[in-house]
Amino acid sequence: MGYRDIIERIYSELKDYKGVGEVAGYIPALSAANPDSYGITVATLEGDLISIGDTSDKFTIQSISKVFTFTMVVRLLGEKIWDHVGREPSGNAFNSLIQLELEKGIPRNPFINAGALVVTDKLIDLYENPLESILKEVNDLNCHKSNIEFDNAVALSEIEHSYRNLALVNFIKSYGNIKNDPHKIIETYSYQCSISMNAKELASSFLFLANGGVLPECGKKICEPRSAKRINALMLTCGLYNESGDFAYRVGLPGKSGVGGGVVAVIPGRLAIAVYSPELNANGNSVRGIETLERFTTYLGESVF
Amino acid sequence: MGYRDIIERIYSELKDYKGVGEVAGYIPALSAANPDSYGITVATLEGDLISIGDTSDKFTIQSISKVFTFTMVVRLLGEKIWDHVGREPSGNAFNSLIQLELEKGIPRNPFINAGALVVTDKLIDLYENPLESILKEVNDLNCHKSNIEFDNAVALSEIEHSYRNLALVNFIKSYGNIKNDPHKIIETYSYQCSISMNAKELASSFLFLANGGVLPECGKKICEPRSAKRINALMLTCGLYNESGDFAYRVGLPGKSGVGGGVVAVIPGRLAIAVYSPELNANGNSVRGIETLERFTTYLGESVF
Amino acid sequence: MGYRDIIERIYSELKDYKGVGEVAGYIPALSAANPDSYGITVATLEGDLISIGDTSDKFTIQSISKVFTFTMVVRLLGEKIWDHVGREPSGNAFNSLIQLELEKGIPRNPFINAGALVVTDKLIDLYENPLESILKEVNDLNCHKSNIEFDNAVALSEIEHSYRNLALVNFIKSYGNIKNDPHKIIETYSYQCSISMNAKELASSFLFLANGGVLPECGKKICEPRSAKRINALMLTCGLYNESGDFAYRVGLPGKSGVGGGVVAVIPGRLAIAVYSPELNANGNSVRGIETLERFTTYLGESVF
Amino acid sequence: MGYRDIIERIYSELKDYKGVGEVAGYIPALSAANPDSYGITVATLEGDLISIGDTSDKFTIQSISKVFTFTMVVRLLGEKIWDHVGREPSGNAFNSLIQLELEKGIPRNPFINAGALVVTDKLIDLYENPLESILKEVNDLNCHKSNIEFDNAVALSEIEHSYRNLALVNFIKSYGNIKNDPHKIIETYSYQCSISMNAKELASSFLFLANGGVLPECGKKICEPRSAKRINALMLTCGLYNESGDFAYRVGLPGKSGVGGGVVAVIPGRLAIAVYSPELNANGNSVRGIETLERFTTYLGESVF
Repeated sequence: MGYRDIIERIYSELKDYKGVGEVAGYIPALSAANPDSYGITVATLEGDLISIGDTSDKFTIQSISKVFTFTMVVRLLGEKIWDHVGREPSGNAFNSLIQLELEKGIPRNPFINAGALVVTDKLIDLYENPLESILKEVNDLNCHKSNIEFDNAVALSEIEHSYRNLALVNFIKSYGNIKNDPHKIIETYSYQCSISMNAKELASSFLFLANGGVLPECGKKICEPRSAKRINALMLTCGLYNESGDFAYRVGLPGKSGVGGGVVAVIPGRLAIAVYSPELNANGNSVRGIETLERFTTYLGESVF
Repeated sequence: MGYRDIIERIYSELKDYKGVGEVAGYIPALSAANPDSYGITVATLEGDLISIGDTSDKFTIQSISKVFTFTMVVRLLGEKIWDHVGREPSGNAFNSLIQLELEKGIPRNPFINAGALVVTDKLIDLYENPLESILKEVNDLNCHKSNIEFDNAVALSEIEHSYRNLALVNFIKSYGNIKNDPHKIIETYSYQCSISMNAKELASSFLFLANGGVLPECGKKICEPRSAKRINALMLTCGLYNESGDFAYRVGLPGKSGVGGGVVAVIPGRLAIAVYSPELNANGNSVRGIETLERFTTYLGESVF
Repeated sequence: MGYRDIIERIYSELKDYKGVGEVAGYIPALSAANPDSYGITVATLEGDLISIGDTSDKFTIQSISKVFTFTMVVRLLGEKIWDHVGREPSGNAFNSLIQLELEKGIPRNPFINAGALVVTDKLIDLYENPLESILKEVNDLNCHKSNIEFDNAVALSEIEHSYRNLALVNFIKSYGNIKNDPHKIIETYSYQCSISMNAKELASSFLFLANGGVLPECGKKICEPRSAKRINALMLTCGLYNESGDFAYRVGLPGKSGVGGGVVAVIPGRLAIAVYSPELNANGNSVRGIETLERFTTYLGESVF
Repeated sequence: MGYRDIIERIYSELKDYKGVGEVAGYIPALSAANPDSYGITVATLEGDLISIGDTSDKFTIQSISKVFTFTMVVRLLGEKIWDHVGREPSGNAFNSLIQLELEKGIPRNPFINAGALVVTDKLIDLYENPLESILKEVNDLNCHKSNIEFDNAVALSEIEHSYRNLALVNFIKSYGNIKNDPHKIIETYSYQCSISMNAKELASSFLFLANGGVLPECGKKICEPRSAKRINALMLTCGLYNESGDFAYRVGLPGKSGVGGGVVAVIPGRLAIAVYSPELNANGNSVRGIETLERFTTYLGESVF
């Protein structure tokens, strides 16, 4: 069965799989999403872009942005990033302060909020105009085929409801592991989360991780082959918060999700696949998105294992 | 570079890499191990067994046994095992009670001690003579080419020093998630940990996980292809205690370690590799074993990512 | 208003205060208690014993026994006990393992289960026949006016359902802070908890803490004046598990409760008061017992503050 | 022995008890304190003020201010304060976020930082000019015999180094248990902590708690008798952070300490006693201050127990 057949089959099986979760409601701008939206895009290393459903619907990528900023920081900082953040699964809810206290302000990994905020702190150190640089990065990843922008309304709404992230930043700063002004970090972080993509763009922007760090379409090198592998490893162990083990078990691919309803996964050497479906489970991950990916690897008979 | 070249290179690079950790000292029988022992075996799906160093030295497999008992239980119980144990990384030291309390007696995954004890409880339910069945299982996995036995001295010593595991069992039992007598569970668990293998036997016994559940040599089916993949996923996210994320990052393979000094990893579709070197790091994992595996995937240019 | 007037007033106010909690149900022998039983006894230093209600009903004193065994151990061991147990409020439920793990096997105080088990371990070291000695102690405290015994049925039932306490003992033993056999400790501890008293006996047996360590009736010295004060301090900060702060706030007296439905408090220099009412709140403390004591100090216009 | 004899004896015993702790160093303004300063004042209900040593040295009262702001808030809000803060000992270091997370943003008690910040939030709601009102309160408590002021340098320095408190406020606010702007709360809180007193003023300002809520000198009613008793109870169980149980055990009085080096205690019905000595132990409490109070109750033969 080809990729198109598989995603058509899944789409038809799951198009009525609704009412199974809750659209993110912690900020007003997110709760406006259409809970029924459902789109799947497979982007292959050969350049095919195979889509079904609402793959032109834009959504904010939220935590998926953590992969992009981490990539940007590692490109300039290399292994030194590990002085500031760990690479172990967190074993707790995504905004937990408990482990942060026990571990003296060193977040467990770059894909929980605490870790991403430390990465953003470094980003501000390393890039003169961090917001511009982030936008440039995601447009680079898409070979500038479309224009990817921030969603200002979402960003501003997040900034206004950022007490928990402000708590994290201030707490980490009290341990000396954050350098910049807390409000500057929250602003940058909220904007990076508000990057607005559709499923096609999201799948395309992860192709470098399926291709040893190089964009297959335009040949641009995003990171070292070694880094691409390692980012995949991090996604597999830490990419879905407290559900990472379950995702590895069911889907068997490196992946990353966001509370905006997007989830993306990579088969190294072959493809990236993005799903958009905004109903979330209790862990903040797209219910239908994960189900889609599980069926995808099952029907394809392929995972990294 | 072929497998032999690679392991010869690594062996020569690391044969003097000593004094970098501590042999397990929590029971007398373990502390007697020769800290300098070092052996590597690669077992391929084609039936090759490529070894260097002390690959005839026997050692107790300790926590590596958790993979075998889990496989035995899943074979009979299927997905019902997940009512009793989770599949998320634990994010804490391997004998932590904290998460167990917060999560009401359901261990995070089957590869931490708490989870393995729950699996052993099921094993006792499912197999009339659990100890005989375990021995039979590991000899099956080796196609009965050699005779694998328990190390009685180690088992008895473990039973005598099992206060922490007894605490875990009693604690879980207070939540109703363990059925059998605590001392029976400790006995069974201590014996399974005392299974004595050398690196050749260990590598061979993991080949089924590289081969979709079937032993390549004798064709025996150990588990479903789906189960093999999922056990690999569990090993990748949870196989090295609090160092699982680091192992995924550095080595990029599903693997499992034991405080006896063994560590084993799998490249699905290709091979299993076992290393024996008893000096452990603070997480209870073989220092030289992990270093060996990191170099192996680096020199080979292959990981699951 | 005299003591009799006060307890008559409270008794009449609260005699229909029922259905407000649950009789302890974790062992069958305890759940047989009559939920309506209600008795109050005030024992004064002058030798008066003023009672109302069901003050001849026997009940097992459970955790109240921790005060007696602690007194017995401190008598022989003095300040050395503090090498094995702390004296800080626990800030957690009464059987929590979390703090025990963070604090390496040293329980927070002698009045949580973990701490009492450590005290019982010392008791076994210090007294040749610990169970006989405990019985002798409580009968001494009552000047041998009645015959206080263990409730064998309750003790045996507790031993059978002691998984959580066994977990605590084994866990502490894994840190080296318990010397004796876990089952011996559980047996001794379960018997001490099963001491059966009525409210009159309970009030009388705490008079030494209101009288600088000396029994007012027969003049026997139970402990040093300094110890009596310090045991009162411990009861005030740690005597009611996770409700100690609330009890200090509402009642303002050193006190101790047991899941058998008894609660006892002391006004230094004046009296001891015991209440029996077996309906418990979520913290395992007698609902009507605490309410009775709050009204007692309010109507009397006296507390330690 | 009279009060003067006792404090003279203690002063002579402890005047060379130096080098036993560390002056608070987390903000520059505090680390400037003279580590050798040592003063004791006893203030009696009869109006005597008995002092020895450096009792005219001013120091910032820091956490001792929590008693004053709590009193001010309870005066207007009464028992409703308990919707926002608990009254149980915290069992953890004074700035711990762990319990706060487990208990959903309700701090354990008003005398840990988290709880005091919630009280300050209420203070801002209840008093139009909270800073003026706090100053008026402490001058009222001293019957306006001297002029008590903020130490602006300390307040500004605290505001600058308030990342951990900002983390607490933002975290609590994320649970909806704080209403006002985080920076406004930090400012108010930092100023209240910077109130500058000497030992004489500090002892005098706690006399209302020894006298049922009324200032003995000028007859002004500060709070209800019931409130005074209850604040004493809170101080006894929660007044010295993670050392409250030890303080109750050794000293046996309700008390409160601050990292500025002050510590104050109350004997209900008799007196208040303040000690200033800025060397702190690991819990942030004055080493010599606590030792002084222990000897005071020992030599006096009086405590609440």
